[in-house]
Amino acid sequence: MTPVTFADQSANDRSLQSMPTPSFFHEDRLFPAEAAVRGIARELHASVRDLPIISPHGHTDPRWFASNEAFENPTALLLAPDHYVFRMLYSQGIRLADLAIPDRNGVPATDPRAAWRLFAENFHLFRGTPSSIWLSHVLVKVFGVEDRLDGNTADAAYDTIDAALKRPDFRPRALYDRFNIELIATTESPVDTLDHHHSIAASDWSGRVITAYRPDCVIDADHEDFHASLEAFGDITGEDVSRWDGYLAAHRQRRVDFMAAGATSTDHGHPTARTADLDRGEAEALFDRIVSQKQRDGDAELFRAQMLTEMAAMSLEDGLVMQIHPGSFRNHNSPLFASHGRDKGADIPTRTDYVEALRPLLNRFGNEPDFGCIVFTLDETSYARELAPLAGHYPALKLGPAWWFHDSPEGMMRFREQTTETAGFYNTVGFNDDTRAFLSIPARHDVARRVDCAFLARLVAEHRLGLDEAHETARDLAYNLAKRAYKLDAQN
Amino acid sequence: MTPVTFADQSANDRSLQSMPTPSFFHEDRLFPAEAAVRGIARELHASVRDLPIISPHGHTDPRWFASNEAFENPTALLLAPDHYVFRMLYSQGIRLADLAIPDRNGVPATDPRAAWRLFAENFHLFRGTPSSIWLSHVLVKVFGVEDRLDGNTADAAYDTIDAALKRPDFRPRALYDRFNIELIATTESPVDTLDHHHSIAASDWSGRVITAYRPDCVIDADHEDFHASLEAFGDITGEDVSRWDGYLAAHRQRRVDFMAAGATSTDHGHPTARTADLDRGEAEALFDRIVSQKQRDGDAELFRAQMLTEMAAMSLEDGLVMQIHPGSFRNHNSPLFASHGRDKGADIPTRTDYVEALRPLLNRFGNEPDFGCIVFTLDETSYARELAPLAGHYPALKLGPAWWFHDSPEGMMRFREQTTETAGFYNTVGFNDDTRAFLSIPARHDVARRVDCAFLARLVAEHRLGLDEAHETARDLAYNLAKRAYKLDAQN
Amino acid sequence: MTPVTFADQSANDRSLQSMPTPSFFHEDRLFPAEAAVRGIARELHASVRDLPIISPHGHTDPRWFASNEAFENPTALLLAPDHYVFRMLYSQGIRLADLAIPDRNGVPATDPRAAWRLFAENFHLFRGTPSSIWLSHVLVKVFGVEDRLDGNTADAAYDTIDAALKRPDFRPRALYDRFNIELIATTESPVDTLDHHHSIAASDWSGRVITAYRPDCVIDADHEDFHASLEAFGDITGEDVSRWDGYLAAHRQRRVDFMAAGATSTDHGHPTARTADLDRGEAEALFDRIVSQKQRDGDAELFRAQMLTEMAAMSLEDGLVMQIHPGSFRNHNSPLFASHGRDKGADIPTRTDYVEALRPLLNRFGNEPDFGCIVFTLDETSYARELAPLAGHYPALKLGPAWWFHDSPEGMMRFREQTTETAGFYNTVGFNDDTRAFLSIPARHDVARRVDCAFLARLVAEHRLGLDEAHETARDLAYNLAKRAYKLDAQN
Repeated sequence: MTPVTFADQSANDRSLQSMPTPSFFHEDRLFPAEAAVRGIARELHASVRDLPIISPHGHTDPRWFASNEAFENPTALLLAPDHYVFRMLYSQGIRLADLAIPDRNGVPATDPRAAWRLFAENFHLFRGTPSSIWLSHVLVKVFGVEDRLDGNTADAAYDTIDAALKRPDFRPRALYDRFNIELIATTESPVDTLDHHHSIAASDWSGRVITAYRPDCVIDADHEDFHASLEAFGDITGEDVSRWDGYLAAHRQRRVDFMAAGATSTDHGHPTARTADLDRGEAEALFDRIVSQKQRDGDAELFRAQMLTEMAAMSLEDGLVMQIHPGSFRNHNSPLFASHGRDKGADIPTRTDYVEALRPLLNRFGNEPDFGCIVFTLDETSYARELAPLAGHYPALKLGPAWWFHDSPEGMMRFREQTTETAGFYNTVGFNDDTRAFLSIPARHDVARRVDCAFLARLVAEHRLGLDEAHETARDLAYNLAKRAYKLDAQN
Repeated sequence: MTPVTFADQSANDRSLQSMPTPSFFHEDRLFPAEAAVRGIARELHASVRDLPIISPHGHTDPRWFASNEAFENPTALLLAPDHYVFRMLYSQGIRLADLAIPDRNGVPATDPRAAWRLFAENFHLFRGTPSSIWLSHVLVKVFGVEDRLDGNTADAAYDTIDAALKRPDFRPRALYDRFNIELIATTESPVDTLDHHHSIAASDWSGRVITAYRPDCVIDADHEDFHASLEAFGDITGEDVSRWDGYLAAHRQRRVDFMAAGATSTDHGHPTARTADLDRGEAEALFDRIVSQKQRDGDAELFRAQMLTEMAAMSLEDGLVMQIHPGSFRNHNSPLFASHGRDKGADIPTRTDYVEALRPLLNRFGNEPDFGCIVFTLDETSYARELAPLAGHYPALKLGPAWWFHDSPEGMMRFREQTTETAGFYNTVGFNDDTRAFLSIPARHDVARRVDCAFLARLVAEHRLGLDEAHETARDLAYNLAKRAYKLDAQN
Repeated sequence: MTPVTFADQSANDRSLQSMPTPSFFHEDRLFPAEAAVRGIARELHASVRDLPIISPHGHTDPRWFASNEAFENPTALLLAPDHYVFRMLYSQGIRLADLAIPDRNGVPATDPRAAWRLFAENFHLFRGTPSSIWLSHVLVKVFGVEDRLDGNTADAAYDTIDAALKRPDFRPRALYDRFNIELIATTESPVDTLDHHHSIAASDWSGRVITAYRPDCVIDADHEDFHASLEAFGDITGEDVSRWDGYLAAHRQRRVDFMAAGATSTDHGHPTARTADLDRGEAEALFDRIVSQKQRDGDAELFRAQMLTEMAAMSLEDGLVMQIHPGSFRNHNSPLFASHGRDKGADIPTRTDYVEALRPLLNRFGNEPDFGCIVFTLDETSYARELAPLAGHYPALKLGPAWWFHDSPEGMMRFREQTTETAGFYNTVGFNDDTRAFLSIPARHDVARRVDCAFLARLVAEHRLGLDEAHETARDLAYNLAKRAYKLDAQN
């Protein structure tokens, strides 16, 4: 059972056709059943499926590419870091410890193979979810595991994957190359040394792993590590970050550092999309209250709001593209947060307003064609009502793709159906995978390309778009728009 | 014109194929038109359509099954209790009195046949609505009335139905058996004697008619009968319900009574999903203000919120599954409420938050795998944004099916399309009909099974699910999940 | 290249079939690809496509029909007045001045041909938008321009259109006749003299151009021209509009004037749907504060709310149908408003509540079958949750069609899919184009008819509706419902 490689896609297709494939891994997967639409989708997809992957926003660990060490085992690689996966198992009463998920005391002493078996026995829980598509893609395309995962096939799959991980061609850099990735962005905090990125740059490997500036921990006064992070921020920059001027200067300094490590963007994950445009005196007084822990009700929210506008002002100076990701209620499950900490599948989307919230920032900088501000949402009701109308008007504003809970095939289709009519395709920025699960990256881009081709195919079949236009648009959605929106051509 | 029976479904199918059927009563009704998808849907449906009906949540009258008396006439049976039907006629300017709808003075002296005729003449108003599907199903399958209802066919239909209702095989128990119902739950208030359920249990009839505990009238201080109900609650339990301890003890006592009458669940229809987790002293003080009519602004809402958490605590003790149905603005039409009272089609859904609202309850009990909490919504925007992420994480939480205004084919499909990607199928609880309209129960389950099969068929056709997996899932959705979620296996 | 005429549709179809047509202008455009559904849609559409156009709500300029002067040039006719079009170009960094869009100083000195070229070069931005469908329809059907617009075809298209506009058969009245318009409503303010309507009535032309009463400028105290408009309102009526009685009398007087100019409706574009039902003393005191510029926070909103109920009371007297269009945040882009004024594509939809908001008005007048109140929304989340349940109950309430940002094919389909199940077809009012872009009116009605036929075709194909019922419903949606809802039969 030799794993197929991604580089030779056409050979891959032939081999898939000659063997009985699991039904959810058919070459026509995700294309509409109607023959005419499917035929158009297939044709469009054929011209984009081999395009390199641009991954301008994600959460892979740069250490992987710096050290290029082998991944540990199937459970540690595929199950433990993927909160999409273990939250579903947890929701059905399975204990996280039994899945070898780390808690505040570290990784539990669970046999990784036993955890894998428990996962496999419950694989039916993922029916109809994007996780099942991504996992199947990884198993089939990366490891050549053709049998559907269940209690009977668990051990054989584990053995195959475990053996592969010990081989050099399954190390991070080899996988990056095999996945046909042209560029991947990671996300670091302002107190990160960026050493891994420096190592990668100093190495003889040609992969492009760039960083992105995510300053939430020194902006969000509600974050449990805020004051510690602020202190580290002062240490790493040498600025007096207890003063408003010094604090802003520290941001400017680190943005330069990040740009030197390839960054073309910043990233802001706030509870709401609120922005503010205070005058200098008000902003300074607010910062003083925050930093001296004399904050009033609403100050933390107002400071986050003001800092988005400050970051936008810096973007106008240095050219970094700004990403705003609002709307997640973090750590909703208090007992679980107490025992296990962050990122355990308990972040829940909330209703999010953009019209009032973004107005201060947009009235200040929204008419600047050189400023790029990409907005994401976890509240799909805002697509047609708020985000598409805003992006279809303001030169600075672009729409990030369907994200997190909504990067399912249905979610991606809703994104196109509800934004294209008002914002068109060209106020969107292509796909990004936003993932920590490195091996799933080709699977996620594959899903996005298929769904976009399916949407375009319907427009062609309904005589709303020429086939030539659809081809051009498909390539833009799969490749060009991400490079343009994230200013990746000008870089390196 | 012999009415066909439900028991012999295959004979029924043959007879339908040999006669010209009304177009909206075709054997492929509700299946997608595309041939491949339709073929799969048809195959899946064939394997679930004869499964017994589990109706774990509804509003039929237990007296029907206790007394087993004949239904009065077509209008009293099919029109008067169905506010889906008469609200549509009312919305087009037809007077409720002319439809023989009871007002606060009782049933008006309207000729039931004249009311039926008026209904039939306006049957076109129901085009595209689930009511038209359900009514047609009842007419064709239960009464053998094959002609579409209109002014010309009204009298013949009335005569056929009226004659049938006088026959023993159209009495409630016979219909229950013929409908292949395995279990039906009714809903009673805490001041109900449950006499009808006791009669049924004492009879030689094998039908399983169980109750469910719906304590709204003694929990909702905004209900017009709250204080009267509270007094009756004290009388029926012998507890001093003017004291917090006695009030809680009365609930515990009645829950035991209800479980003796088969109950496996409680049911809570609140204006919002708000829950609270007050300490004992605060809860007692709140209750004292409520019961002594010294309540402050917000106390009624806070008390409802606290009582959901109290009910959850009792569910952990006694095992009753908890159902929360928030989001209806009851009796929106004041003049109509004054003249006609409740349940006249003037309950309107409202925007509903779950993320903040359910947090107190979930943080207390959400991680308990043995606690079952089923949440419904009238605000579909919460499916993908709030409910699926919550149910896809918390072990205790499950999603009730598309409900009330949303149990249309489109509404059911939206439910699957917007919840499956994040919560999967196995955090949902199968279908329930939630109806007072007894005769429509097979029609409603038939629609649900068809829509679920259509959804699964698309997943199969798009190579996202194996056909074997789809078969297993279809059976789970049609039958097994309801039994599991409502703990119906362990019972009787 | 002779422009085809609308009157002889069948000849037109033949000629289209014999020539290679641009792919987005196929005779099956917008019909679902599946053959059975498409066949039914095509059949339904064939029976409605030649029905006359009823345009009961729109914003064309009555001066066009009064003076019947030639339109100026392609850019002034098709680009400058269409904020759907230029906002998309603006969103991609194109300067409004380069598109010849007027600012507060008037029309810039931009060569109209150069502006047209810039538009044509960026026509790809409109892929997937309704604007591309409407513009293509206008180019092909009105001007016979068969080549897709781009940088290469820009000049030829400009020349063809410019030449046509100089001919008598492209003057406003000729186009009205050729478009097969039976009636068109414009919208005027209470300070308008209605002179253009009087001229049209006095002319020998048979076109029916009626007005509608839109009193926002004398009701909305937040409007920049409120006090000036109020003074003009006093001047034109001779009433003392600084007193509550005189103010109401002025409205009554102008409603009579508008009815004399054909009006059958009023139109109210408020930020929210809020209504109020104050007693006379409260209302008078509120008005006094407003008019004397002593208003408190919330007074402007409360006054708009109260005036909706006052307008409803007048509608009960004089029979004018009331239209409520809430939910637009006007002039969101302050710098652009400062430089360019209103209607520059910067009005953004907002979340809108109807359940609480409309209750005061509905509790007062909602049960009156002779009162017609048509509600529109820019918040699609209200379709299934609020508007369809309200319209499916209250006799007075009807649903306006998918509107503004939502009159795309997808938006129209969502409207049917989310309202029909609860409100049916007969609580909706047919289509209206709501446009200033006169030439796009046939295109917009064509899209609406096609989408409705596609929706009906699916219901037929899924055996939920008889083909005969679908035919009748298609005609009602395309023609009859608009006439009935706007009381257009009784008039002229």
